Amino acid sequence: MTHEIAVIPGDGIGQEVTPAAVEVLEAIDVDFDFVEGEAGDAVKEETGEALPTQTRELAADADATLFGAAGETAADVILPLRDVVGSFANVRPARSYPGLDAVQPDTDLVFIRENTEGVYSGIEAEIDEGVRTLTRVITEDASREIAEFGFRYAKQNGFDDVTIAHKANVMRQTDGLFLETAEEVGDSFDVDYDTALMDALAMHLVMHPEDYGVVICPNLAGDMLSDLAAGLVGGLGLLPSANVGEENALFEPVHGSAPDIAGQGIANPSAMILSAAMLLDHLEYGDEATAVREAVEGVLADGPRTPDLGGDASTDEVTEAVVDRL
Amino acid sequence: MTHEIAVIPGDGIGQEVTPAAVEVLEAIDVDFDFVEGEAGDAVKEETGEALPTQTRELAADADATLFGAAGETAADVILPLRDVVGSFANVRPARSYPGLDAVQPDTDLVFIRENTEGVYSGIEAEIDEGVRTLTRVITEDASREIAEFGFRYAKQNGFDDVTIAHKANVMRQTDGLFLETAEEVGDSFDVDYDTALMDALAMHLVMHPEDYGVVICPNLAGDMLSDLAAGLVGGLGLLPSANVGEENALFEPVHGSAPDIAGQGIANPSAMILSAAMLLDHLEYGDEATAVREAVEGVLADGPRTPDLGGDASTDEVTEAVVDRL
Ligand SMILES: CC(C)[C@H](C(=O)O)[C@@H](O)C(=O)O
Ligand SMILES: CC(C)[C@H](C(=O)O)[C@@H](O)C(=O)O
Repeated sequence: MTHEIAVIPGDGIGQEVTPAAVEVLEAIDVDFDFVEGEAGDAVKEETGEALPTQTRELAADADATLFGAAGETAADVILPLRDVVGSFANVRPARSYPGLDAVQPDTDLVFIRENTEGVYSGIEAEIDEGVRTLTRVITEDASREIAEFGFRYAKQNGFDDVTIAHKANVMRQTDGLFLETAEEVGDSFDVDYDTALMDALAMHLVMHPEDYGVVICPNLAGDMLSDLAAGLVGGLGLLPSANVGEENALFEPVHGSAPDIAGQGIANPSAMILSAAMLLDHLEYGDEATAVREAVEGVLADGPRTPDLGGDASTDEVTEAVVDRL
Repeated sequence: MTHEIAVIPGDGIGQEVTPAAVEVLEAIDVDFDFVEGEAGDAVKEETGEALPTQTRELAADADATLFGAAGETAADVILPLRDVVGSFANVRPARSYPGLDAVQPDTDLVFIRENTEGVYSGIEAEIDEGVRTLTRVITEDASREIAEFGFRYAKQNGFDDVTIAHKANVMRQTDGLFLETAEEVGDSFDVDYDTALMDALAMHLVMHPEDYGVVICPNLAGDMLSDLAAGLVGGLGLLPSANVGEENALFEPVHGSAPDIAGQGIANPSAMILSAAMLLDHLEYGDEATAVREAVEGVLADGPRTPDLGGDASTDEVTEAVVDRL
């Protein structure tokens, strides 16, 4: 069976790390048909559109999508793409690796971020001169779906602690609904869980990440807390993510297009290759996913390393080293 | 001249640390008239109201208010109190102290948090079964006021870097207005400033807090980022805060009522005493404020210390040690 994979490198280092991930997938014994699409600042410059219809359709029709990064137009690209693949869950593992500098070397977290609503509704208005509003939307359905996904993920991946993040003491109706629904779901699973105010959780994650496992969050809280966790483990260069829908999914590194180092061939491809491993998991090639992850871990431990991790290797050298270990 | 200070200990360790701060203020050569008011879980239990009208009026009429902490009713107490004193700015310094364990020992940050709007508007509705909304409000006036306060604060306190936190790539209209207004204000000041997406900022603050100084934030971002910073410097026991209005102000530790250790006389009074130092600054007793801060720093460095900092001293012993140094 051949899987059609939409490949959207985008801007900046997206152009460098996406081919690296494709190279790794090509080295695996699975049949993929890679179809490339354009998105981001460069194509907007040319055509006026950051996300051309053709690319949108490519992602909609593919079995899964690999996305690199976009520059200024990041939101114009990634938010519609998340929507196109129908993704309701954004899965963001953040773990520290042996041998790499980390603010907190004992971190192994997975953020399960609600991916469709909250302050990402896009509903804004100027209701009077100098007075603007944004409608934050929380639904019972989306809250139930993300909580079910999160608890199932915890069970399937051997996590015995789940935390539901919220700010229901202030956003009483909206996060009240999110919290109440997630608690209901939690009660129906055989997994321990806690609830935490998102501000207090930010503090505790910084001080004691080892106390946490899976964290289920509203959209923006997940955005901020997962970046916080990236800081704990040594930066965005290591964080993959999956945008998961009922039938389709999109995989992307948490990092952006990094214009400061783009074009030099020194971008760290780990986050992107680990995103490809999540794609393998999603298509139910669990053994292959594990092999890729172990290869990346081996290279992170023994080198070669890109400059962001204190080494002087190129993207290509790191990618070769990963492929060699498969 | 006598200053009338409303004192609202509240619940839990609020009852222990608030008298400590009053004791320190009494040891200073300034005339205060302390008037105590009730608020929090206990008074709600008795009277049905977490914030009795009498306490509200006390805070409204006083020259400044010292507030300890509240339990379950925290939001019902502190949000109206912030409103009663007309506070538009929430000032939250987070710094590490020599000799104390910290995740990032080189931290010296001050969050200037917008204190009146954003998702704290209180405007929520159930628009359909299982569909709820919250109206996030951003106004040009409040954005200008907080930015002016923040840049002025940076100048007056010798900070040469200011960061404006926002998420204008997603909340385009609302945070767009916040960002644009704050940038306009920044351009009119003779201070360097940067802007940062709040998610990326969370990561950078964890990895390199030494690169930042004053951070101007929308309401909830300030709530989360200042708690994150508390994690960097060793926990909430050290963080004071000021809620500043045109004429009135309220001072409170960032920590809560800590029911787990309440009643044992071992709560760390530092955050509350440092809040009293901010009160002295506010009433323009700058020398006295500095003296209190130096006394707290001396005790933090040399002990005695409460259990949260690895010591075994009581709240009273730490308070005496601070008073002895004045
Ligand atoms: C680019 C932006 C819209 C996006 C988000 O806020 O989700 C990014 O921060 C992310 O985390 O993937
Ligand atoms: C208790 C709560 C309403 C409050 C807030 O969100 O402002 C608290 O977290 C704080 O930071 O003072």
